[in-house]
Amino acid sequence: MRHIEASNTRQGYPRRMKWLVTRSDQVHRDEWISIRADTCRMPDGREVGPFYVFQYPHWVNVLAVTDDQRVVLIRQYRHGLGEVVLELPGGSIEPSDEDPMDAARRELTEETCFAGGAFVKTGVLSPNPASHNNLVHCYLATDCRQVAPQALDSSEDIEVVLVPVAELRNVARTSLLQAMHVASVFLALEHLERCG
Amino acid sequence: MRHIEASNTRQGYPRRMKWLVTRSDQVHRDEWISIRADTCRMPDGREVGPFYVFQYPHWVNVLAVTDDQRVVLIRQYRHGLGEVVLELPGGSIEPSDEDPMDAARRELTEETCFAGGAFVKTGVLSPNPASHNNLVHCYLATDCRQVAPQALDSSEDIEVVLVPVAELRNVARTSLLQAMHVASVFLALEHLERCG
Repeated sequence: MRHIEASNTRQGYPRRMKWLVTRSDQVHRDEWISIRADTCRMPDGREVGPFYVFQYPHWVNVLAVTDDQRVVLIRQYRHGLGEVVLELPGGSIEPSDEDPMDAARRELTEETCFAGGAFVKTGVLSPNPASHNNLVHCYLATDCRQVAPQALDSSEDIEVVLVPVAELRNVARTSLLQAMHVASVFLALEHLERCG
Repeated sequence: MRHIEASNTRQGYPRRMKWLVTRSDQVHRDEWISIRADTCRMPDGREVGPFYVFQYPHWVNVLAVTDDQRVVLIRQYRHGLGEVVLELPGGSIEPSDEDPMDAARRELTEETCFAGGAFVKTGVLSPNPASHNNLVHCYLATDCRQVAPQALDSSEDIEVVLVPVAELRNVARTSLLQAMHVASVFLALEHLERCG
């Protein structure tokens, strides 16, 4: 163990920590999940494996604020947890998206039938760097309005929930469960406090 | 689609949204991952499946502050993302843990050799309610001190990074990637602002 006094923690990542993949097998792949099993050699020479990696496209989520200062949340059943949960709109970046923001705009409109004027990226997160190979791009959209009928995937059954912006911090603290969404809300609040 | 004006979003979850599991198969299970494939009937009668659920024990993470006002972070290689990342200490709740806080205390000490006086739970998150059946319990630990030699799992190679508390908000915004950890830091900051 080394103790490091760091003020700029982005610098100086020790390359020695990386693992070398000595074998990689696709253990499952279909329309929904893609899982790889790697055998790896650690820097000290030890072999570890199987080490599973969940392979996904990158994701987006959107903290959308309406032109009358309400936040556009959604409520839907999520079968992993087996509960109906309050979430941000979001989804996967598709090959046809030129930029993650395109996916954010599309998912917001598809899931909520709201669309926004100004989109700004507030951060990039990892769902879980131990298991997932993808990232999630977080957006803040302002001046959103209802623009179109809702168009849902066949397995989606989504309720739109509008919450006053003034309650957002409390909602993130007490009513959102999804870690990527809680983080995204606080990143958006930081952005709003720093940039107006 | 129904639009709902909600100020208390915890209440009134519509039970109709839940899915009925009509078939469930274990598709993979070993020491590292456990994956279930469910076929489900949606409230409107449609069948969906296979719907994969990643089954894990519940997790914990800890925002630990030392007695000299530094935050105890760790830096390690994470093979899912293939990068060395800055994280909070944390891990799984084990059957021998009577309370999630026991796991938080153990993981903090095992990964960093720091231990804390006062632990308080700042929130409960879902890694991803669409895919994961587990939750992550977030703790704030104060008055932590170095107490013991570091004891690591064979696949862990962890650097302890001490960051001044005053830089924590900026670190969460710019240097942490792991969504559960970013959320946990902001929940801890909220707690500190509300409760001192």
